[in-house]
Amino acid sequence: MPILYIDAVPVRVDDTGVVTRVGLLLRMLPDGTVSRALVSGRVLHHERIRDALVRHLEKDLGPVALPRIPVSPQPFTVAEYFPTPGVTPYHDPRQHAVSLAYIVPVAGDCRPRQDALDLVWFTPEEAASPMVQGEMTGGQGVLLRQALAHVGCLP
Amino acid sequence: MPILYIDAVPVRVDDTGVVTRVGLLLRMLPDGTVSRALVSGRVLHHERIRDALVRHLEKDLGPVALPRIPVSPQPFTVAEYFPTPGVTPYHDPRQHAVSLAYIVPVAGDCRPRQDALDLVWFTPEEAASPMVQGEMTGGQGVLLRQALAHVGCLP
Amino acid sequence: MPILYIDAVPVRVDDTGVVTRVGLLLRMLPDGTVSRALVSGRVLHHERIRDALVRHLEKDLGPVALPRIPVSPQPFTVAEYFPTPGVTPYHDPRQHAVSLAYIVPVAGDCRPRQDALDLVWFTPEEAASPMVQGEMTGGQGVLLRQALAHVGCLP
Amino acid sequence: MPILYIDAVPVRVDDTGVVTRVGLLLRMLPDGTVSRALVSGRVLHHERIRDALVRHLEKDLGPVALPRIPVSPQPFTVAEYFPTPGVTPYHDPRQHAVSLAYIVPVAGDCRPRQDALDLVWFTPEEAASPMVQGEMTGGQGVLLRQALAHVGCLP
Repeated sequence: MPILYIDAVPVRVDDTGVVTRVGLLLRMLPDGTVSRALVSGRVLHHERIRDALVRHLEKDLGPVALPRIPVSPQPFTVAEYFPTPGVTPYHDPRQHAVSLAYIVPVAGDCRPRQDALDLVWFTPEEAASPMVQGEMTGGQGVLLRQALAHVGCLP
Repeated sequence: MPILYIDAVPVRVDDTGVVTRVGLLLRMLPDGTVSRALVSGRVLHHERIRDALVRHLEKDLGPVALPRIPVSPQPFTVAEYFPTPGVTPYHDPRQHAVSLAYIVPVAGDCRPRQDALDLVWFTPEEAASPMVQGEMTGGQGVLLRQALAHVGCLP
Repeated sequence: MPILYIDAVPVRVDDTGVVTRVGLLLRMLPDGTVSRALVSGRVLHHERIRDALVRHLEKDLGPVALPRIPVSPQPFTVAEYFPTPGVTPYHDPRQHAVSLAYIVPVAGDCRPRQDALDLVWFTPEEAASPMVQGEMTGGQGVLLRQALAHVGCLP
Repeated sequence: MPILYIDAVPVRVDDTGVVTRVGLLLRMLPDGTVSRALVSGRVLHHERIRDALVRHLEKDLGPVALPRIPVSPQPFTVAEYFPTPGVTPYHDPRQHAVSLAYIVPVAGDCRPRQDALDLVWFTPEEAASPMVQGEMTGGQGVLLRQALAHVGCLP
């Protein structure tokens, strides 16, 4: 069966809701390479999606990130990560994962935790640039640009 | 882990996209009671969500229903069916299932198949009426009204 | 030409994004009757929609309401208020108005201003109750239930 | 006041709802230059948005295009065309126009009409390519890529 995931795109916003920065984690992959990544993880048995969002955001951004979890369960898109490349833009060699993707404004202090080496806040232009996109894997660069398109900040 | 489902609300539409009818199946439940239901079922390993939609619509409505699968993977809502009643409006005593819900116009001939006893096309008003709502179980009546709200036909 | 409006549904949320209360204004209508209403108003020439949202929320809820304007311009629905009743669920005898509808969490202190007599925070159940729905006009009761459906709180 | 518009992205889809082609019109602009464009136009007084969609699609694609108007009034985004460049990604030197943007599968024969010189069906990759994007004006290239992001076909 497919595994249920959430993907969260952490963003900073101004008073009118305009996205000014996108937060990307720097992760060490199992093969020793380093890549930029969204907040991402499984939904557990008996866990609500909104609780999974809170848990993974806290795990990756720390306990005082103050994420503003979306009021609606409607994700901006659904990313289907297939073990076979090319079925969709998303790829996960380990498993078939279906991820509900949300954009989450965070208002507090963020510090990378767990397996994340760093957290960098990029402007939408930087986040969509070939350099940053080239540092993302598994189709998360596409997912990030879909998020930017949804908030009206696609360069 | 939660099981991934799709829920599809089959609808008839006029030339301007207005929903004129909602299709509900009549199912015999394991305990012998009868209830009205949406098209619903699991997403399989290695199966795209849009292929799961096609498969379940064909299974329940027959091979010439001519469903118009949505172009966007964005569902109108996500229904979280918990084995414990009351966590969300949705309840499934067998399992924790997370269902991506889509509204699917169907243009062809529909005939109930498999375990469905009948298929009835209701007006939006009838579908939202206490009588029809009372014949739906597990929170699918709520899901149906959410679909009607999304298409602007909530009485 | 149709006049462009915004409708905002002010809500209180918990830490996981669940809507716990919906804020409704009490307004005196020109004919002397009193009705419950959403935050609503025109978009001005040269004004962005997100600036119109900020302006009308501040006008109706005061300067320290701290509204969290949505990051995406995608409204949860579009309400078409026709001067002729019955074309859509929405009705405005004065004009043809097309309103982009958003759900806006507010975190600060709210106090009714301008032409609003009062502001009351209802639970989703109360907001959808026949009593409160009966106190709303022009189809805003339908719009409110559409908002509740979108956030998964439709009773 | 802002003028209310609709933008429609005509697409061809396969049986599972995947977008296979995007239709772009070739228009002669007032200054004699030629540009690729979406189906676009005003909403009239007393006209429903879905009727405006039908009217403009028929005007630009002909009477047998068989457009499948979306069942939900929720647009995938709202494009705010300002007369001042840079306020948003969208620009219209003539006026402040706010456009509700929809993706519309068309199943029939399309032929360009009125002021359109031609209609070309591009793959999503071609539509997002620098060459085609360079032939679009007023931010419609951005809008087109937002549509591709929404349907999961952003290259």
